[in-house]
Amino acid sequence: MKIGFIGLGVMGRPMAAHLIAAGHDVAVNRVKPISQHLVDAGARAAATAQEAVKGAEIVILMLPDTPDVEAVLFGQGGIAEAIAPGALVIDMSSISPVSTKDFAARVKAKGGDYLDAPVSGGEVGAKNAALTIMVGGSQEAFERARPLFELMGKNINRVGEVGDGQTAKVANQIIVGLTIQAVAEALLFATRAGADPVKVREALMGGFAASRILEVHGERMNNRTFDPGFRIRLHRKDLALALDAAKSLELALPNTATTAQLMSAALAQGDGDKDHSGLIRTLEALSSATA
Amino acid sequence: MKIGFIGLGVMGRPMAAHLIAAGHDVAVNRVKPISQHLVDAGARAAATAQEAVKGAEIVILMLPDTPDVEAVLFGQGGIAEAIAPGALVIDMSSISPVSTKDFAARVKAKGGDYLDAPVSGGEVGAKNAALTIMVGGSQEAFERARPLFELMGKNINRVGEVGDGQTAKVANQIIVGLTIQAVAEALLFATRAGADPVKVREALMGGFAASRILEVHGERMNNRTFDPGFRIRLHRKDLALALDAAKSLELALPNTATTAQLMSAALAQGDGDKDHSGLIRTLEALSSATA
Repeated sequence: MKIGFIGLGVMGRPMAAHLIAAGHDVAVNRVKPISQHLVDAGARAAATAQEAVKGAEIVILMLPDTPDVEAVLFGQGGIAEAIAPGALVIDMSSISPVSTKDFAARVKAKGGDYLDAPVSGGEVGAKNAALTIMVGGSQEAFERARPLFELMGKNINRVGEVGDGQTAKVANQIIVGLTIQAVAEALLFATRAGADPVKVREALMGGFAASRILEVHGERMNNRTFDPGFRIRLHRKDLALALDAAKSLELALPNTATTAQLMSAALAQGDGDKDHSGLIRTLEALSSATA
Repeated sequence: MKIGFIGLGVMGRPMAAHLIAAGHDVAVNRVKPISQHLVDAGARAAATAQEAVKGAEIVILMLPDTPDVEAVLFGQGGIAEAIAPGALVIDMSSISPVSTKDFAARVKAKGGDYLDAPVSGGEVGAKNAALTIMVGGSQEAFERARPLFELMGKNINRVGEVGDGQTAKVANQIIVGLTIQAVAEALLFATRAGADPVKVREALMGGFAASRILEVHGERMNNRTFDPGFRIRLHRKDLALALDAAKSLELALPNTATTAQLMSAALAQGDGDKDHSGLIRTLEALSSATA
């Protein structure tokens, strides 16, 4: 398939590479030395985003945040003016569910179709083509995109209509962030009470406290290995999305709000680029005699 | 073995029944119609707690809270005065880790030995002999008690010295309570944003949001089935233990504190005897137009 791929960051590069490796005709723009390997592998280097999507059946976006997606779609040189009739825009960025519904309506008004398909699983999941992909949009558009999703991910679910993929991703980030904070509070409590947090974690793994977070991030906390993984800075962005949407929905999310504040504190102490399991360091600083 | 078993509540009855069924010589006190089946199965009915522990090699306590354990051990008619030399007291109640260390020292001063061995898994785990048991105390005392633990539980871990079992249980309750709140915030967010929380939960089960709580309690929230299970009232007690101990340790546990407050709100709205997955109802009430 003829694909325009916009956004060659940490996630976008390995995702685009899987599509190229499968033989798709992929156009990319803003090629830098770090993404030259995509061109070497067969991607077409376009001079602009509009050129990259020209004639493409599928346009994939993998961008940092809501304003970036808006600018690429509708800003100066935006691709909404350049997409082919019937082209399917798949936004795999993690952005606002509310804005997503607006963007989809505007793309459809230009004759395109739209899916939101944010992912979880991080850089490792992207490299291993093992991403979880949460999709919002029509069943027809989902079926059209499914062969591409299957090149990039493993756990692929159509959650509902446009925006529902982003909503699921926000829900995912709420659970992941708050469960990390839960594990941090529990393991720091155990440590300060004089118990061995390694043994406590092991004892808890078999019961109702069991989670992927206790397994993976609990171990990182105990081993003090805070290389990302997923950066606190990015997780704070995702909880901000949750709280912005919750505000417009008149919905109270008390622990999401507190956890977002603790992530801000983590940034203040210089931990923004540490893995989100590093939230235990923020909690330690809150309760440190030397703070 | 000759065992005195004190505390025939919802948990204590099935736990004692497993010991009796295995042929142990178990004495119980305060036999009521609801626990008469234990005597019918071969337990000795004692007139008092002191009589129940007389000559016992092992004394098991399964009581509601710290003051109950203190009263049974050291109050008027307390068993610390009546235990046989070398008797092993196993407190399987969920109580304060700090008080536990004090109780153990006082029992040892009377010539006894001590283990704290709180459990998780609830009434279903007790009935199915599938409890998680978190043990604090010497390796020697643990080995002595292990055959009895194996009649009552499946996931049996010695976490460390006296008090560390209670510390692990508190850590467990922090993680379980905060993960329930995380799932409640995520699923209510998804619902209010217009997505189907059943599909969102399914999409999230394969990724980093996966947990026993999302699996079991997330399903209860979606099905609106809030029969306990584990009552919010009791979980609030456990988080109060966490916050009391954290206060004495000068340790800040922000999300534990907020979740405990939300549990108090649940009690205020009459939900204290609902399953802890019912915390989503408290969140709904916080964000309800009719509140």
